[in-house]
Amino acid sequence: MSNLEIPKVQQAAVLSSIGSVPEIVHDHPVPDISTLQPGQCLIKIECTGVCASDLSIRRGDWPIKPKLPLVGGHEGVGRVIAIAPGTVDSPVSVDQRVGIKWLATTCLQCEVCGTENESLCQNIKQSGYAIDGTFSQYTVSYTNYVTPIPDGISSRDACTIMCAGLTVYSALKKSNTKPGDWVAIPGAGGGLGHLAIQYAVALGLRVIAIDTGDEKRQLAEKLGAEKWIDFAQTDNLVKSVAAASGGLGPHAAIVTASKAVAYGQAFGYLRPAGTLVAVGLPPTANGNLEANILLLVIKGTKIVGSNVGNRQEAIEALQYAVDGKVKCNYEVRKLSDLPQIYESMEKGQVTGRIVIDMSI
Amino acid sequence: MSNLEIPKVQQAAVLSSIGSVPEIVHDHPVPDISTLQPGQCLIKIECTGVCASDLSIRRGDWPIKPKLPLVGGHEGVGRVIAIAPGTVDSPVSVDQRVGIKWLATTCLQCEVCGTENESLCQNIKQSGYAIDGTFSQYTVSYTNYVTPIPDGISSRDACTIMCAGLTVYSALKKSNTKPGDWVAIPGAGGGLGHLAIQYAVALGLRVIAIDTGDEKRQLAEKLGAEKWIDFAQTDNLVKSVAAASGGLGPHAAIVTASKAVAYGQAFGYLRPAGTLVAVGLPPTANGNLEANILLLVIKGTKIVGSNVGNRQEAIEALQYAVDGKVKCNYEVRKLSDLPQIYESMEKGQVTGRIVIDMSI
Amino acid sequence: MSNLEIPKVQQAAVLSSIGSVPEIVHDHPVPDISTLQPGQCLIKIECTGVCASDLSIRRGDWPIKPKLPLVGGHEGVGRVIAIAPGTVDSPVSVDQRVGIKWLATTCLQCEVCGTENESLCQNIKQSGYAIDGTFSQYTVSYTNYVTPIPDGISSRDACTIMCAGLTVYSALKKSNTKPGDWVAIPGAGGGLGHLAIQYAVALGLRVIAIDTGDEKRQLAEKLGAEKWIDFAQTDNLVKSVAAASGGLGPHAAIVTASKAVAYGQAFGYLRPAGTLVAVGLPPTANGNLEANILLLVIKGTKIVGSNVGNRQEAIEALQYAVDGKVKCNYEVRKLSDLPQIYESMEKGQVTGRIVIDMSI
Amino acid sequence: MSNLEIPKVQQAAVLSSIGSVPEIVHDHPVPDISTLQPGQCLIKIECTGVCASDLSIRRGDWPIKPKLPLVGGHEGVGRVIAIAPGTVDSPVSVDQRVGIKWLATTCLQCEVCGTENESLCQNIKQSGYAIDGTFSQYTVSYTNYVTPIPDGISSRDACTIMCAGLTVYSALKKSNTKPGDWVAIPGAGGGLGHLAIQYAVALGLRVIAIDTGDEKRQLAEKLGAEKWIDFAQTDNLVKSVAAASGGLGPHAAIVTASKAVAYGQAFGYLRPAGTLVAVGLPPTANGNLEANILLLVIKGTKIVGSNVGNRQEAIEALQYAVDGKVKCNYEVRKLSDLPQIYESMEKGQVTGRIVIDMSI
Repeated sequence: MSNLEIPKVQQAAVLSSIGSVPEIVHDHPVPDISTLQPGQCLIKIECTGVCASDLSIRRGDWPIKPKLPLVGGHEGVGRVIAIAPGTVDSPVSVDQRVGIKWLATTCLQCEVCGTENESLCQNIKQSGYAIDGTFSQYTVSYTNYVTPIPDGISSRDACTIMCAGLTVYSALKKSNTKPGDWVAIPGAGGGLGHLAIQYAVALGLRVIAIDTGDEKRQLAEKLGAEKWIDFAQTDNLVKSVAAASGGLGPHAAIVTASKAVAYGQAFGYLRPAGTLVAVGLPPTANGNLEANILLLVIKGTKIVGSNVGNRQEAIEALQYAVDGKVKCNYEVRKLSDLPQIYESMEKGQVTGRIVIDMSI
Repeated sequence: MSNLEIPKVQQAAVLSSIGSVPEIVHDHPVPDISTLQPGQCLIKIECTGVCASDLSIRRGDWPIKPKLPLVGGHEGVGRVIAIAPGTVDSPVSVDQRVGIKWLATTCLQCEVCGTENESLCQNIKQSGYAIDGTFSQYTVSYTNYVTPIPDGISSRDACTIMCAGLTVYSALKKSNTKPGDWVAIPGAGGGLGHLAIQYAVALGLRVIAIDTGDEKRQLAEKLGAEKWIDFAQTDNLVKSVAAASGGLGPHAAIVTASKAVAYGQAFGYLRPAGTLVAVGLPPTANGNLEANILLLVIKGTKIVGSNVGNRQEAIEALQYAVDGKVKCNYEVRKLSDLPQIYESMEKGQVTGRIVIDMSI
Repeated sequence: MSNLEIPKVQQAAVLSSIGSVPEIVHDHPVPDISTLQPGQCLIKIECTGVCASDLSIRRGDWPIKPKLPLVGGHEGVGRVIAIAPGTVDSPVSVDQRVGIKWLATTCLQCEVCGTENESLCQNIKQSGYAIDGTFSQYTVSYTNYVTPIPDGISSRDACTIMCAGLTVYSALKKSNTKPGDWVAIPGAGGGLGHLAIQYAVALGLRVIAIDTGDEKRQLAEKLGAEKWIDFAQTDNLVKSVAAASGGLGPHAAIVTASKAVAYGQAFGYLRPAGTLVAVGLPPTANGNLEANILLLVIKGTKIVGSNVGNRQEAIEALQYAVDGKVKCNYEVRKLSDLPQIYESMEKGQVTGRIVIDMSI
Repeated sequence: MSNLEIPKVQQAAVLSSIGSVPEIVHDHPVPDISTLQPGQCLIKIECTGVCASDLSIRRGDWPIKPKLPLVGGHEGVGRVIAIAPGTVDSPVSVDQRVGIKWLATTCLQCEVCGTENESLCQNIKQSGYAIDGTFSQYTVSYTNYVTPIPDGISSRDACTIMCAGLTVYSALKKSNTKPGDWVAIPGAGGGLGHLAIQYAVALGLRVIAIDTGDEKRQLAEKLGAEKWIDFAQTDNLVKSVAAASGGLGPHAAIVTASKAVAYGQAFGYLRPAGTLVAVGLPPTANGNLEANILLLVIKGTKIVGSNVGNRQEAIEALQYAVDGKVKCNYEVRKLSDLPQIYESMEKGQVTGRIVIDMSI
């Protein structure tokens, strides 16, 4: 496209106000490359995933509200079609396929950026939240933050790693586990959970999948979970999980479920010195993990919050998908379906992830 | 004493039932060394501290109740006067001065023992809880678990390190901090807190002391706290602590206070990627740390429970006291005062720690 | 056997002097259980591996010479047939199948024991070196150090994990790698190397196997090595290894080869911040790793020596074998063949490991 | 200066060829800000240290030769006087005082940059080596890499932290030590060594200083070294150092000496599981650390090369100097003395560091 004319307008899903539904607009302006800051680039989106966080942003669940009007989306793959004038030493080039992540850019200067915790940077800009994201044909991102997509993986598959895959991979890296250890995954059949199973298996962990229903059980077992626990059919989930791990409880829990009760249970079934990694966000900002202080101390439990991951982890998470060890379960839709997709997701009618393909 | 006759009976403080007051008994039997198991030794107690946990045990606060009748106490220093027949390769010898800790012995076989987490062993025996402790003239402990006391420190000073000092030193080691970092210490003026200040300073950390009252302020500042915050005179403690650390919040909080509100505040004022170390136990088993899941994830907070420390940490913690960098603030009493000491502690009338000297 | 009579004499291979060949003796005394120290146990050996270190000990290669006369061997599996009187809280019981390792016992008191480095304890006793080992029908070991052997693995397979498997597993754990990283294994076709390939694969690492000859190439590839480099057919080994890893060099090298040249090469081909783990011992005590200081600094290379592993690692290493992910390639012989086995090993005529089965 | 006219020419020390002496030039061009790349800035140098590496570069000791002609120097402090057009989100502003380090810039994209090892980046540009450095009145550096200098420290003091201080601070952080551990510092009286003593003390370590002569002894002791060993007056340095640490040897050695013999000794006297950090570069590229492989394995020694430090470490190292815990011992000279300074340094006639003040 570098020698093609970049169109002036494009199709985009634009959210105008908190609580409303994004509107599909056909004459949304395409940013003029000459107006971009050095370090930015213009990307033609090929595919983008839809994330539960997109709904939280739309609803205004979080203390900080998004920019408005907003083009949402933070899990995209596309091709760089132009790099802003004045950009120095760009690590990506025109025509290169790249991924766009929740972290559009961070300062790379502060203490947390300097200690591999970029996602906690106070100067962060998030795609589809603080700046426009991937629910449009063209978007602007940062040359030093987009993730190069290697050959050998489709854009559809790759985009699901940019948020969902990265998030659970990074969570597993924070779990203080080593190969051979047991990890429980509440929400194992969900969008994050079924990826967590696959990464956990690839990392040599033994998986206890926790969710409900036969369909999810079959999925979990197919993906390599060694144990399955249906939370709806268990009298005492804490005891069941401990038993599944041989008695002491799992070494870690990656809580991809979004209900506070799943957090409380995980706190209960971890083995001494075990680690609870918090990933799944409750539907409102009010969900609490209630940790009994006496148990916390006596069991030496560790609890850690994990918010997506850094750039290096994105490269690593992607490689597992390229190698065929991890694959997201998704349904392909087109951009104009987004309002309807949101509605289905709000009603809990979507199993697996939704990937929007811009070419259909 | 090795060539003296060991008496048959001794003075001891004996708790007969949950909720009662220990009774001072003068004809409590001294264990006959020939009845001990290989690996055990008989120790003549010189000094012992009194810990808030002794009160929790007496009240039956915890899910697991103590042995009864019980000689409490788990923070003692004394001399080995006999080693059980059949003991092999004892690391301590008769006449050696040693410390007795909450961990009387653990299995040294299990996964947690094998990974420096002895205090989380499921086969643990605790002094003054699962077995008799230090509130008596003679007690039995384990040759491979008692801590050799070096010259250059009084037994009175040394005993306070065996539980209080060790507990806060180990907590600081779990705080993911490095020299130069900020650490907040709620409960800074208390028995654990004033030791935590000193260890933190010795470890090169910058201390924000949190407590109330002028006396505690003066103590905290004398011990090296760089900032002082009186929780009773602050409208917004979370903001005050963050400001004291330069804006972002401290890198860690060692919560030696026992109230759940102190935990909630610490969760609030930590900087991104900060660590909350739980040490102080609420007066009942019901206190909860309520961690908002969204904040936990967004701030990447770490929470870790810390329950005393291991043998190697006891040696290290003691060395700081020998080197004069750490000294507990305590009042000396005699064993027969114990019922009265308990009563004063229950009423919150004791500032600093109580050390019982058996020779007075 | 607990209700059988323990014989007074047994078959054993006894080394009488440095440099000599062990002699097969049929009337070697079986230790009388009543003479053992508390904590010891008598074990009826089922199988034992023969290790290159047994030859070094025989030759007197190392600064510290073995006890003499010596029953060598430090990689055995057998059944506990008696536990010494006075033993307390034995973690193993009579009739239980257990493994004997190079570490017969350590003090569990010192700083290195307290920090998961038991094999570096200064009070260590080594099987088949400082005390008698496994080249006999019965031997004495320590209840708290023998490794319980789970069901589901033959004694022949299990014994090879007690030294060879444990050694390479522990080395890999010290390699600062994470799943997805590249690891080079010089000596990949040897007794240690072919196990290192399997453990590396099980840990999610990508393996560059380095050795020579078609037979070893086929073995390495069958076991999961992704790349093969024949050192005898490569002009520039350093460049070849770097190329095999994609250009930068592997993240780590586990040097199971015993020649100093393999060490020098590994130092050369590691990527920046890479880790060289030293495992293979040169045939004499004089082999040096020559690390150019300028390169060491500029590349930020890490070098670490690894000497077997600790008890917890033995349990973990064994589990991989139980799970069928690791299997040693060995030939079965009988104890009376030992002099001849030594001779063949000295001549380099043995490929794979030798396991002696006491029942044949 | 932002509203002053920037001069067209300046005084600079220019090296024209390998092996020659830098020439003081008075009409060296000042870079025109309009020609700079976005992200660069122009800095008016106030002070700069002279480092032994400047001599190595001049002599062409290293495999990669410097740019020529070269303005050397990589340890400077100055004020930003202009920021290149097109620079986005500069973390520093005009008139701000900043430090220039050996790392002028790195890619911040690669695996080593992503894991806190920026100094090992393959796309690095080094001040005074790959690009012009600080031996001039004005120089160009990178807004995201210069280190903000806080108030409360003179530019003379601050510049010595930018290379010498940072180097030893980072080395100490790689030493696997904790407060209370012993660290040996060969070369303790030198430019790096006397800073290493101070940082080690500030980090709570116990220091064994190794060097020769009464002047250096007094310096080391004044700075807080607990033990002193004169290598010229010791029959057996390895034994002396081990004895000084209480018998087992120090936990770590920071080798700031540049002779291979100091490396060999450190390898010898470390305690089991100890860490040797390589810092001092031999005068030629040929110096080797000869590590006996048997000892390396039996003692579980760790060896790690340390090459300056990253940006976060520079901020931390500087804070110790601001707090008055670390101060470099230096002599102040003027830029035109540089040829003569080089000559004195080559002859070993300089004790302490040389700081060039541009205002004199």
